[in-house]
Amino acid sequence: MPTSEIICVGTELLLGDVIDTNSACVGKMLSSLGVDIFYKSTVGDNPDRIKKVVDHALKRSDIVIICGGLGPTEDDITKQVVSEVLKKKLVVDRDVVQKIKEKFINRVVANKTILKQAMIPTSAKIIPNPIGTAPGIILEDKGKIVILLPGVPEELRAMIPQVEDYLLKTIKPRVVIKSRVLRVLGMGESDVNNKISSFMAGENPTVALLAKKGEVHIRITAKFPPEKVDSEIFKTEKAIRDKIGSYIFGVDDETLEQVVGKLLIQKNLTISLAESCSGGLVSHRLTNVSGISKCYLCGIVSYSNQAKAELLGVPEELIREKGAVSPEVAREMARGVRKITGTDISLGITGIAGPTGGTKEKPVGLVYIALSTQEGEICRRYVFSGDRESIKWKASQTALDLLRRHLLSIDS
Amino acid sequence: MPTSEIICVGTELLLGDVIDTNSACVGKMLSSLGVDIFYKSTVGDNPDRIKKVVDHALKRSDIVIICGGLGPTEDDITKQVVSEVLKKKLVVDRDVVQKIKEKFINRVVANKTILKQAMIPTSAKIIPNPIGTAPGIILEDKGKIVILLPGVPEELRAMIPQVEDYLLKTIKPRVVIKSRVLRVLGMGESDVNNKISSFMAGENPTVALLAKKGEVHIRITAKFPPEKVDSEIFKTEKAIRDKIGSYIFGVDDETLEQVVGKLLIQKNLTISLAESCSGGLVSHRLTNVSGISKCYLCGIVSYSNQAKAELLGVPEELIREKGAVSPEVAREMARGVRKITGTDISLGITGIAGPTGGTKEKPVGLVYIALSTQEGEICRRYVFSGDRESIKWKASQTALDLLRRHLLSIDS
Repeated sequence: MPTSEIICVGTELLLGDVIDTNSACVGKMLSSLGVDIFYKSTVGDNPDRIKKVVDHALKRSDIVIICGGLGPTEDDITKQVVSEVLKKKLVVDRDVVQKIKEKFINRVVANKTILKQAMIPTSAKIIPNPIGTAPGIILEDKGKIVILLPGVPEELRAMIPQVEDYLLKTIKPRVVIKSRVLRVLGMGESDVNNKISSFMAGENPTVALLAKKGEVHIRITAKFPPEKVDSEIFKTEKAIRDKIGSYIFGVDDETLEQVVGKLLIQKNLTISLAESCSGGLVSHRLTNVSGISKCYLCGIVSYSNQAKAELLGVPEELIREKGAVSPEVAREMARGVRKITGTDISLGITGIAGPTGGTKEKPVGLVYIALSTQEGEICRRYVFSGDRESIKWKASQTALDLLRRHLLSIDS
Repeated sequence: MPTSEIICVGTELLLGDVIDTNSACVGKMLSSLGVDIFYKSTVGDNPDRIKKVVDHALKRSDIVIICGGLGPTEDDITKQVVSEVLKKKLVVDRDVVQKIKEKFINRVVANKTILKQAMIPTSAKIIPNPIGTAPGIILEDKGKIVILLPGVPEELRAMIPQVEDYLLKTIKPRVVIKSRVLRVLGMGESDVNNKISSFMAGENPTVALLAKKGEVHIRITAKFPPEKVDSEIFKTEKAIRDKIGSYIFGVDDETLEQVVGKLLIQKNLTISLAESCSGGLVSHRLTNVSGISKCYLCGIVSYSNQAKAELLGVPEELIREKGAVSPEVAREMARGVRKITGTDISLGITGIAGPTGGTKEKPVGLVYIALSTQEGEICRRYVFSGDRESIKWKASQTALDLLRRHLLSIDS
């Protein structure tokens, strides 16, 4: 199989003014075809440096996809430089002129602008641009393939299927690559690593770990003939699930609140929340789920002790004796909000989000989370690291995960 | 001035599974110091290819910043490869071991994991990692500077100021580029454009507009010697403020909740919230502000009508007659929560976040926001566009801005 690399052109990408999403889009397409991507480079709008990067890429890769620099302005020079490198002449393509004129039918545009975008290297194939005016360009030269795409993300995205079609026909991949992400909660990166290290030595599928905000992602990537790839991923997924199944809350883009929301809706259960240190974040996340209003009835963010006492009915002497951050108060908060709202389940969350307010006995990051049902309460103690927002986030992750585990434990 | 380039390490970046934001963060810092960035490369977790990319970078650039691959797992190999390229030995750093152990004080972690992260090339400077466990590393070698940073975006971001400090002292730039962002709420992009178009033609400082989630950013960028750059930016800022002052709620990374939180703390006023369609987002945002617990006492997310009636005392017949999404109910929600909690100010927010639940009279995006004080209530009507999360966000922006304008209007 051929190897490939991606080049992005644009000074704004180097300066950090624009986040590059184009190369991820191209990368996904290439890897799905089983084409190895070994490098990605970004270079500014400078002819010498673009030339060097393109030269270097053509030496080490079979397919080079270049994004950006096809527009009508002075600093759009990708076509000129690539034509020079490949020793092709740029000539005006009449069909392209016609298409651009049709797009500009309601606007006055300088002829120069149109002609610049219609300059195409000789012997190139054209990829029509369904959104903008700059067409994509495919060049085949001495066994190498060079593909130029516009830098505007919507335009590039719209042209990816045409590039994929071309590559499918041209390189006829025997194998494709697919990835699946298993999302893990309640286990650190190195613990996951230790549990599944045997899979991480595998070569196909490969298994990689990624630490994410309050969770760990296990990415299974398999490279097989199209008809075999799904079952190979499934085999590895099953083996990993056998080791740490209950810690996996979702796959790919699925969020924890979506998983929990779906379970609540499926099981037709109602929930209320009493939040203190998480400050409404659990409510916010659950209410991002469309359709949750059948299940989520009410949340009370009892930030002050008075609110804990008056609204949730936590005994004032309990707060005085044990402190607002204590398992006893977490339990009372959960029980209180469940009684007031009459829901099936409730959560109570109290802790110290920091950066101030910690003591030796009760450090910043200490959080108690209680889950209450008619059968009573359970309460867990956690110490989270990080800044205020990160502690709030981890508290919300852990609270939602406690709820998830509870929902999974009851028969529907 | 030295030239620089950025290298990102991680197969997930090539495959497009992760969007790279680290290089933008590093790029911004480098360009602010007037350091030219000519290239950016991405390479997978493969020792040979990482070595080639690092070798190539050291040939063409003076400063090379490498992001990613410092973690504890098998595929984290950046330190090993860079040490090899620069012919340094990796040795365990006792101080780093100690710091990692302190971070893991409440967890059992394999010794191997700790030792791997504590391996530091000889003669390296260490950049402490305020969030995670992998320290950053600075290497100076034959006039070149190589800096290794972790790939976890929050950790990298937290370490950027230390890298900037080091580079400022080491390379001593003659001109620096600085930007300042003025954040605008309550005015659309083209209205801002019309009001300040005269500044947008300037060459130094330059003024640019950027539409952001629920706000507009005005970016002033100036390139001057370090001692002059601030006053030049200030002159332009003052002229813009003379035109649209009250619409500017903050600068740079200052969030609306920080601005509002500061005002509440300064004026020593208490606040409570009654949220429906915003689902706890306003509570969540306000409680991101450290020290807010003096002012923010309680929030009630009254998602169900029952919660609105029983907890906030909104008359049931009012909900039946006017509907839960009505100015009358918004006012009653605000008044109710203020009475219950005894705060100086309160907000009531009710609306339709969608995607379902809209009607012709009350479309998705319709939101009423009421502000209540002892003097009575004001209530405003809005229709926001976008998906569920975007409508929630805009409701929270607008509610916090209403609060900000109220706080500015009262004498402290």
